[in-house]
Parts: sequence; structure tokens; C-alpha cells
Amino acid sequence: MSKENKTVAILGNGVVGVALGKGFSELGYRVVFGTRDVNGEKTKEALKAVSGASAASYADAAKVGDIAVLALPWSGLLQALEHVGADNLAGKLVIDATNPLDFSTGVPKLAIGHTDSAGEQVQRLLPKSRVVKAFNIITASHMVHPQLPDGVPDMIIAGNDAAAKVEVSALLKAFGWRAAIDLGDITASRLLEPLAMVWISYGFSNNHWAHAFSLLNQKAN
Amino acid sequence: MSKENKTVAILGNGVVGVALGKGFSELGYRVVFGTRDVNGEKTKEALKAVSGASAASYADAAKVGDIAVLALPWSGLLQALEHVGADNLAGKLVIDATNPLDFSTGVPKLAIGHTDSAGEQVQRLLPKSRVVKAFNIITASHMVHPQLPDGVPDMIIAGNDAAAKVEVSALLKAFGWRAAIDLGDITASRLLEPLAMVWISYGFSNNHWAHAFSLLNQKAN
Repeated sequence: MSKENKTVAILGNGVVGVALGKGFSELGYRVVFGTRDVNGEKTKEALKAVSGASAASYADAAKVGDIAVLALPWSGLLQALEHVGADNLAGKLVIDATNPLDFSTGVPKLAIGHTDSAGEQVQRLLPKSRVVKAFNIITASHMVHPQLPDGVPDMIIAGNDAAAKVEVSALLKAFGWRAAIDLGDITASRLLEPLAMVWISYGFSNNHWAHAFSLLNQKAN
Repeated sequence: MSKENKTVAILGNGVVGVALGKGFSELGYRVVFGTRDVNGEKTKEALKAVSGASAASYADAAKVGDIAVLALPWSGLLQALEHVGADNLAGKLVIDATNPLDFSTGVPKLAIGHTDSAGEQVQRLLPKSRVVKAFNIITASHMVHPQLPDGVPDMIIAGNDAAAKVEVSALLKAFGWRAAIDLGDITASRLLEPLAMVWISYGFSNNHWAHAFSLLNQKAN
């Protein structure tokens, strides 16, 4: 399928947003960063890093996006979604790459879990959108072309809309992931966000951020 | 190091207990199953399956064990630990292979999480033992010699006692795991038990139970 005429709204212009922006741009998407500060230094850097990208307010980016990516810290995510306006993402695929991390004690921990998750909160705030949790268990620099010395990792996703998950799976394959593993509806974010913490804890313990998960011996399709 | 004179008390004689019992037996440990029903059919089958194994009450098995393995369902775990008697495991390495699974709705889900875990409950009930969470993210048949067609998986462990984790890491290597990854103190069970649910959810969705996790591109030691 051609992506030539598709626009992706990337909400957030930090390292995650830029890494995914590059990946989408390579695939032929138009990239629009949604940001609080269209003329800020960070936005300028993001635009320089991603070929052909533009920047707009959260709401304007969401409006023009055929799909959207949430690449925001937990501390700003829910407020940003208010600025986005749920109707501007109605019917659209929304890829949630966030984790509900609380940094108040120095080492990050999950702010919520077990009975709720960031993925579910996002879906509740965007009830007409097709939210897919993805990219939350990997570092920005390996979100696209994640080849590693000992193998190609797998991404695990969750969401309520089957077609949206098919679309994200195709995207993950195009980005170079070995497999996209569907863990079920958006409540599986309660598992994927702790999985991100496994990844983060290993990173903190070893001061090493280039690792990734693989699920060995998957079922043959 | 020779295991000739070491005894492992395996509390529970289901598929997990038998699988680990075989592994310990191969390494030269004496295996004693702790069980509610020393003369029951299930115990007889376990003794038939594991060379040189014997069976005893939970308390007697715990007394003679140099180390202990918890291989019990959540529904029976805490009560079994009362029968064990914490003092019978004082000072000993206790490997916790359990998950707090609630089967009341048909599909298993975690009974506790985020602010507590089975690993922590076990450590609280056995305050003088050195509890290490391990083997909870894999099926019984791959706990020992877990070679898979596309690689050798990694086991992730957690516990408060560094020496106990070194001991479990050596055991995991002897059992054939690629690496034993130390995720931190026993509170990391809050991450390892959801990780088991990732494994279980994939199993239910695909009716496939032979998968296992690998952490690619680990830090070089």
C-alpha cells in the first residue's frame, strides 16, 4: 500500500517522536509534529531531523493526521490529549507509545497498574479513536530498523480494534521488526507497561539501553 | 561445585514440580517432594517420574531441604506455607516459581499486582528465607534444557539476597538457560508476574505453550 498521501501526526517532539518521525518519513508519510511550542528550539531540532516534517499545535496536527502517534511523557500526556480534542482523532488509528512513569523518587516506577493502564486511559479519553499500544518496550533509537547483534526483536501490541492492529503490524514489519505480537484488547496495556519497566530496570541496573525483547519459538502462522 | 549431598525440597508435585525435580535430580540433588498427600496418586506419579525422589509432608520436606522450590498454584500457596512453617526454611534459598493467577473468570488474570506480588507475599511469610523469584515465565516442559528452534531463552529473576541470586543464576546456567537476568529486589516480582501473564496470554490466544523470552543485545559482561 502506498503511504504517499498519508499524514502522521506525531504528538511530542522528543527523542521518541523524532525516531518514529524518521521511520514514517522513510516510508513516505508526511510527518506533522504536534507540539505546545511550534517555534521552540526543540521543535526546530525535530524539524531539522525529519525530512519534510512540519509542526503545528496539538489540535491542528491531530486534525490533519490520518493517523496519530502519542510520544509524550506521562506527566504531560493527559493534558496534551485535552488540547488535542478527542474529536480531531475520531475514527483514526492512534498509536500509544507512552508509559505511565513516575520519576518523583528518582528511579522511574509505574504510576498506575494492575487495574488500569495508560493505554486504557488514552482509549477512554479518545473513545472514538482506534488506540493501539506499541513501541513502549523499546528505546527510541531502536524503534525503527531494530536489528541487534544477536537477532531481530519482536514488538508486542494491544488494542480493541482488529483492523487497527493489522495496520500497526504491517507498519512494524515495514520498520524491520521480526514479528508484531497481538496481546489482545487495550487492557493488555496492564501487561505491556510493566514489560516496559522490565526493560527500564535492566537499563538502570546495567547502564545499558540497547536491549530488546524477543519471543522465541512463536507459533507458526 | 558438587550437589551430591544437597537436598532440594520441591513443594508441589504437579507438572512444574516434576519438571524441576527432574532437572535437580540430573544435577545430583536429592529430591524430596513436599505434599498434602504423601500417598496420593499424584505423588506416586511424581516419584515415578523423578529418579531417587521421595515424598514427605510440607513441613518435613522443608526441614530436610537445603533449598526449597515453590511449585504450587496460587490458590494453595499461602496455606501451604503455613503448613511448611517459616522456621523450617529459615536461612535457606527458596525459589518461587509461582504466579498469583485468578481463574475464577475462566481466563487467568493476576489476582494481585502493581503494589504487591506473590514474590513479596512469599518473602513476607518466610522472613528469614532468601526468596528468589524464578521459573515463573516459562512452561514446565522448558524449565530445564530450554533449547528452542530459534534460540536459547533467558530467565529473569528477582530477590533481596545477592548470594541467593548468584546461586540461582548458576543453577539456571546448569539447566541450560542462556542468561539469568537479575531484575533487582523481590519487589520486581511486580514486573515478573505480569511478564508471566504476557506469556500466558500469548498461549491462550494461540493455543501454543512452547514459547519463551529472550532479551536481545544484553550488556557484555
